[in-house]
Amino acid sequence: MLERCITDVKLSKEEYTQLAPGLQARLFDLEQMLLEARIPTIFVFEGWAGTAKARTIATLTRRLDPRGFRVHSITPPRTYEQQYPWLYRFWLKIPSYGQMSFFDRSWYRELLAAYTTGGSRDEWRTHCEDAVIFERQLADDGALILKFWLHITKKQQARRFAKLLADPLNAWRVTEEDLWQHRHYKKVYLAVEEMLSRTDTAFAPWHIIPAADKRYARLTVLQIIVGALESRLGITASDREASLDDSGLALRRYYLDLRTPVVATPRAAPVDAGNSSTMTLQQAEPITTPVVVTPVAPLLRAASPLQRVDLSLRLDDDTYHRELKRLQARMYLLGLQVYHQKRPVVFVFEGWDAAGKGGAIQRLTAELDPRAYTVHAIAAPAGDDKARHYLYRFWRRLPPRGQFAIFDRSWYGRVLVERVEGFARPDEWRRAYAEINQFERQLVDFGAIIAKFWLHISPEEQLRRFEERQHVPYKAWKLTDEDWRNREKWPAYLEAADEMLLRTSTPYAPWTIVEAEDKKYARIKILRTAVEVLEAELGPVKLD
Amino acid sequence: MLERCITDVKLSKEEYTQLAPGLQARLFDLEQMLLEARIPTIFVFEGWAGTAKARTIATLTRRLDPRGFRVHSITPPRTYEQQYPWLYRFWLKIPSYGQMSFFDRSWYRELLAAYTTGGSRDEWRTHCEDAVIFERQLADDGALILKFWLHITKKQQARRFAKLLADPLNAWRVTEEDLWQHRHYKKVYLAVEEMLSRTDTAFAPWHIIPAADKRYARLTVLQIIVGALESRLGITASDREASLDDSGLALRRYYLDLRTPVVATPRAAPVDAGNSSTMTLQQAEPITTPVVVTPVAPLLRAASPLQRVDLSLRLDDDTYHRELKRLQARMYLLGLQVYHQKRPVVFVFEGWDAAGKGGAIQRLTAELDPRAYTVHAIAAPAGDDKARHYLYRFWRRLPPRGQFAIFDRSWYGRVLVERVEGFARPDEWRRAYAEINQFERQLVDFGAIIAKFWLHISPEEQLRRFEERQHVPYKAWKLTDEDWRNREKWPAYLEAADEMLLRTSTPYAPWTIVEAEDKKYARIKILRTAVEVLEAELGPVKLD
Repeated sequence: MLERCITDVKLSKEEYTQLAPGLQARLFDLEQMLLEARIPTIFVFEGWAGTAKARTIATLTRRLDPRGFRVHSITPPRTYEQQYPWLYRFWLKIPSYGQMSFFDRSWYRELLAAYTTGGSRDEWRTHCEDAVIFERQLADDGALILKFWLHITKKQQARRFAKLLADPLNAWRVTEEDLWQHRHYKKVYLAVEEMLSRTDTAFAPWHIIPAADKRYARLTVLQIIVGALESRLGITASDREASLDDSGLALRRYYLDLRTPVVATPRAAPVDAGNSSTMTLQQAEPITTPVVVTPVAPLLRAASPLQRVDLSLRLDDDTYHRELKRLQARMYLLGLQVYHQKRPVVFVFEGWDAAGKGGAIQRLTAELDPRAYTVHAIAAPAGDDKARHYLYRFWRRLPPRGQFAIFDRSWYGRVLVERVEGFARPDEWRRAYAEINQFERQLVDFGAIIAKFWLHISPEEQLRRFEERQHVPYKAWKLTDEDWRNREKWPAYLEAADEMLLRTSTPYAPWTIVEAEDKKYARIKILRTAVEVLEAELGPVKLD
Repeated sequence: MLERCITDVKLSKEEYTQLAPGLQARLFDLEQMLLEARIPTIFVFEGWAGTAKARTIATLTRRLDPRGFRVHSITPPRTYEQQYPWLYRFWLKIPSYGQMSFFDRSWYRELLAAYTTGGSRDEWRTHCEDAVIFERQLADDGALILKFWLHITKKQQARRFAKLLADPLNAWRVTEEDLWQHRHYKKVYLAVEEMLSRTDTAFAPWHIIPAADKRYARLTVLQIIVGALESRLGITASDREASLDDSGLALRRYYLDLRTPVVATPRAAPVDAGNSSTMTLQQAEPITTPVVVTPVAPLLRAASPLQRVDLSLRLDDDTYHRELKRLQARMYLLGLQVYHQKRPVVFVFEGWDAAGKGGAIQRLTAELDPRAYTVHAIAAPAGDDKARHYLYRFWRRLPPRGQFAIFDRSWYGRVLVERVEGFARPDEWRRAYAEINQFERQLVDFGAIIAKFWLHISPEEQLRRFEERQHVPYKAWKLTDEDWRNREKWPAYLEAADEMLLRTSTPYAPWTIVEAEDKKYARIKILRTAVEVLEAELGPVKLD
């Protein structure tokens, strides 16, 4: 879940000052409503050292009634706490009905420590289960639980530590433990990935927050919490309008702004993630009709992996044909290995209409033995598939050992088209992230090799391709009224795709975002990635 | 979950013939309603070899419309099925919306095989998780899932096999695999216990069915399924009355019978479980007001562990005092060991009002160092405890390492008083069995030693003790109006206690049922059990 996190996003001071007070005031209102509704809430803050978790919590509590919340700062267990089962001290801190609780570190501190100090694997798994059981028991009892991972890169952490250590008044803040974590960043990173994937549930989801810019992190957390509380309390947009008094003017303006999509425009070059660039939130041209978005959207969009895709990438004809030949030859050999080594292979293609999925699949499979692969074009479910769980139609299309299954659209429809078009209820598509991760984990456990591609183009390029399809007779069949309708919902699809990429990029089944504005570039990137993924699993093949 | 299963219960042919046809007809009605409501249902039949699972399923399907259901007979995976992830073939068999599916063996067949053939423990746990994930995904999608374990003892299995093998027409039914299972009954038993406890969930619960008597097993399964379907379809008692036409006469009679409690009376000596005794369902004297019971109750009650308790057990004064002295001395030494070995100890006391919990606890702790133990008398929750999850007040009362915590009533109130009095909703107390098992498993993982005692007396003895309390001035404070009210609900409490004993007797935290009609007998049995449990964990102590 960390892999796709954009870490260099920033928020200007003006924008922060404009929005934060309104959300803080709103949180105060919600605190009262929670108390009345007797809903206990648990907000967990975990993250890398140097991400100012305590200060983030302070942003949230600033305007709250102190009687309504508790902040728990979790240290390693003290001697007397070690006399009890490990969750004992957290049970003692659960909020009463209607109370808010903020955890600055939590039970996950112990899970991470246990992983990195290398205890028994069996015991570690049990502890992960214990944490999920703990949260499920509380959620079943009515608690709202949100978990935040404040994320920075190793470089950003280095910069942060250097700044603190240079300041005599703050040097003490950097502990031995923090420095150990920095030296072992990669090791801890892997522990975090596995911990997040084992404990990310629909009833207590993780949110990954880019935290290099404090204003951005704090405002995003504020928005997510306000949004989740409003949704839990059943507050609709019109209720919200009605409830805002004069002091909520800025907030109202903020909510009104949401009616039109907001696009983050990088001021500097967008690609090098190490190179910090200042972002501002700008009004984008509304594409057509107004889009309904949750209050959470715009800032998340600023950290959108898709907004960062470099669509200028091109490939010249010569390189394209040379590379195509070379990579297709390797694919041929790898196809034989897949068969000999009896590994099932699953390739998933998702992306915008007219992004070039079909053409890319054609180039990928051109030299494969036709008996070795099946391409499944996934449209709306029908017949048997429609009368069962949405995963049924993918389970039954799985490849056997030694075969490829290539999905032109896939189970991700649940969190894309079904989400945007309302074919799945919010609780259904929210649950689907975990279900999909479980599904893919089960495939990988069995020995499957998975690669997933998101083909990305700009709305302008899509329009150009649509028009071409309209005018070129043999391409006209590809263009339907539905394509035009989907196009109108571009911002909603963008939001859905971004959340999908973030939540379902796992160490065992990562996404590859493909810059597809140029078809040649896209096809070569896909072929190259496929070859790399297969070689990593099957061993390199030699071309004599 | 198997330990407390009564295995020698029987049902007469007349009673079976009277009840089964009505329930089968009812199942046909429900089949139509499920189809209309588009609710898919999954019924899993697992159990020991020789329990006639297929014939049990035939009882269920006899009157059904064949278009509405499928029966799946699960063998070990075939070669082509091994080309896919292990759950693949089960995904392919999930029912469509509105369809019923019966599994004669299931994914649990593979789980059991994997356990007993001794693969990697890590992999086995993952497979258990996979099964739970599979069921959760289907349940979240609206499926109703019930799982049955048909249970017989090793002796009963031997008898069954002998009978089959003696018959040339049926000898082929006993396979090599069956005989292997019989030779390794104990090993498989432990595998089943762990498998059940890892996969028993509120959304796909296990039901343990005594299966030595086929009529009893089949009628019980029929009842459980009919009850669960009616409850899922939101059918109330009055709807049911209205929907029964003339052909349902026997059934109507059956439902009417339920208004008064039914008590199973053993014809032979009740104690020796190996010695099969014929049971009949008889009308018991209604205790006071009519009791609302689910259609499932009376047959389960026939297999009630509590109906079998031998309340004639007595102890003479001499033995009592001699044993008391001896055991209390051992308890003293074991108390020192608890402290030295730093193990936390949890003793739970549940039972009828006036069953003698207080007196027993007094004898148990008489020679313990008073600093070593705390007795928690649990009444209705108040203050902080009332404003949080029901387990909170027990987490915070846990003993630290090296200490005893003795609970005079406990977390089991959730599935006893809170269930019977309606303080917990059905979904809450049903969920609580798994929550409690998880809770106790977490304690045992930490190193806790747990013993749980149910003190059992007859309603007559309770009345005698109540009256004594009324007349003996220094005991009068013990008797409240509530005690009299609870007494009126004896059958409902009995049903709740029976289900509790069945569902929460785990290998790591078994229940001890204490025959408490005679206080001296009860106290000695408790002390002796406590000594045995502690010695098993801490090693035997020597009295010099």
